[in-house]
Amino acid sequence: MSNFEVTVLGASGGTDGGATQCFMVRPMGCRGLRSICVDGGAGFSQISQMLARSKDSFKSELLESFYANDFEPAGQFFDPKASVSLGFPQCILGSLEDALEKHKHLNTFTKAMEIYMGVKEYYITHAHLDHIGAMVLNSPFACDANSGDAKLICALPFTLQAIEKHIFNDVIWPDLLHGGSSRLKLSSLTDGIPHVCGAFPQWDIIPFKVHHGFSASIVDERVYSTVYLFSDRSTKQSLLVCGDLEPDSASGGEPLLEKAWEYIATRVPRGNLKGIIVECSSSASTPKHELYGHMSPAYLVGQLSRLREMYGDPDVLAGLSILVTHVKTIISEKDPRLVILQELREAALQERLDVRFSMAVQGYTFSF
Amino acid sequence: MSNFEVTVLGASGGTDGGATQCFMVRPMGCRGLRSICVDGGAGFSQISQMLARSKDSFKSELLESFYANDFEPAGQFFDPKASVSLGFPQCILGSLEDALEKHKHLNTFTKAMEIYMGVKEYYITHAHLDHIGAMVLNSPFACDANSGDAKLICALPFTLQAIEKHIFNDVIWPDLLHGGSSRLKLSSLTDGIPHVCGAFPQWDIIPFKVHHGFSASIVDERVYSTVYLFSDRSTKQSLLVCGDLEPDSASGGEPLLEKAWEYIATRVPRGNLKGIIVECSSSASTPKHELYGHMSPAYLVGQLSRLREMYGDPDVLAGLSILVTHVKTIISEKDPRLVILQELREAALQERLDVRFSMAVQGYTFSF
Repeated sequence: MSNFEVTVLGASGGTDGGATQCFMVRPMGCRGLRSICVDGGAGFSQISQMLARSKDSFKSELLESFYANDFEPAGQFFDPKASVSLGFPQCILGSLEDALEKHKHLNTFTKAMEIYMGVKEYYITHAHLDHIGAMVLNSPFACDANSGDAKLICALPFTLQAIEKHIFNDVIWPDLLHGGSSRLKLSSLTDGIPHVCGAFPQWDIIPFKVHHGFSASIVDERVYSTVYLFSDRSTKQSLLVCGDLEPDSASGGEPLLEKAWEYIATRVPRGNLKGIIVECSSSASTPKHELYGHMSPAYLVGQLSRLREMYGDPDVLAGLSILVTHVKTIISEKDPRLVILQELREAALQERLDVRFSMAVQGYTFSF
Repeated sequence: MSNFEVTVLGASGGTDGGATQCFMVRPMGCRGLRSICVDGGAGFSQISQMLARSKDSFKSELLESFYANDFEPAGQFFDPKASVSLGFPQCILGSLEDALEKHKHLNTFTKAMEIYMGVKEYYITHAHLDHIGAMVLNSPFACDANSGDAKLICALPFTLQAIEKHIFNDVIWPDLLHGGSSRLKLSSLTDGIPHVCGAFPQWDIIPFKVHHGFSASIVDERVYSTVYLFSDRSTKQSLLVCGDLEPDSASGGEPLLEKAWEYIATRVPRGNLKGIIVECSSSASTPKHELYGHMSPAYLVGQLSRLREMYGDPDVLAGLSILVTHVKTIISEKDPRLVILQELREAALQERLDVRFSMAVQGYTFSF
């Protein structure tokens, strides 16, 4: 029985500037249009395109690739046992029909606005532009007095401070946080402490600060990011959703990701961890000094092994779904997402890790 | 005889978060892949999609609309006499074939990289995120030691300071300006003073600071933007490319746009102004206090009348091409771009302004 439904609005690791990380997360089969998003690198525009595409069977199971072929069959990107479907979940589409009864214009943008208005909280991993851009560009919609919308931007303090100081400052973007009628608000989380999700109060969301490399211009200045553990208090099931990150050891940093694994291994009972959404930006051929605070296949499989070790049970991760995100666009013959999937599967086999890797692809919904 | 070739990589006024303003400008029929861009709200991703689309005749003359219909016939958006074609200009596509001979992978991303590497200068109108976002997300490509790429970000000081302080600061984005190997550099322009274009030295590019409303949170703090006059020293022909702006009178500000009109009326001979690319964000039904520093049809036609008045010749603008950009996404029955086009044509008729309005649509090339 699945517990979490994740619709991928964006999963690119750049640098092409396509739809970057934004995962819409909901309880499986939940009625209504409420949702929360982890990161805001995609948004209203991607929602609109998904709704328009759903009416068009042409190319519906072909993905934009632009490498060996411009479009590739979707099946190659998913584990054969993954629970994945094109477009929004049926329960959202059903709820959308109900919500639209009050409207006279039933066009795609009207539908997209209903879904966008349903996003009640953003959980931001860090303030890099590819994780917040669309959230910022869409924000005037959230402040329209007629929209009935209200949104929280939830994150650890270092992320909120960056967004407040450098984005909503009337220089890079109108300051919609401090205007009188604004319904866009910041909500500060605490590292390692469960936060009760506003949209879905049955969920605890626990943020963990993690390493994300170093500053490009200031020697030894570290950059941080966040991973979020979703924990359903009634079913006791959990899902881990990561932003950009690297293993603690990659930069010789203090144990941070290690603490997240320890929390999971001690608090999430065996079998209750339903999935991990995690980046793997670059392929195995990338030199370590060119990872810039990101995961490689070796790093990711190494960290999964570490989690298994902490559980002290060689089979604890058997069958676990790993959804891989944030693959960087490079110049190559083959789609790097397919290269990385293969490398991950081979590395996991060598470590006798029986996990299932799929690629997070924009426009698809995954169940965990 | 046309002089300027403008490929629209993005022209959305938001808030949907689709491809926002970026115009690739080149001398008509110019060989090679060099180009400059006015604003950076779109980039590599849109170049890739345009190249992929060019191979696919399906829907090629239908535009994404998402209002009355998800796709609308392109012809509605253009003046019948406009010189417009789908995709990149033939001279770029021809030069691309030559450039590709050195590559072994001839896929769409490789081609897109060649065109992206050809962008030598960005002329930024102001630092709002919808005018710089893709330029920032694409910037690591420009700093890749293997790419042979080098780019200048050209703007008035207030814009460069914002980009340096709030974007390339290792918080919102890696500081790629001050890294040792970076080939991304800032280039400061001076208000009203001709700047010799690096990519096309036959061009003077003259920036004029203009009004763009007020700060959202600080009372009476003004926001500024820039318009760029392109002037070809050999042909004496000119093109005006604007970012976001409002008439000086809209906010009771000092004469700024007025100075740009005065410069044009005194320096650009009658008939040598080939076109104006200018925003018109909202329709005539929008209250003035909801324009937030932007143009309406009445404001835009009023400003064109003012330019005519300065020339002192009632027929001076006859047949002038006006390319309208930055229409905001709203919830409505009809595509607001079509509404605004109609309102502009009616308002111009009333003022006996015989200009030709077309809508800047992503993926099309216009000649001036």
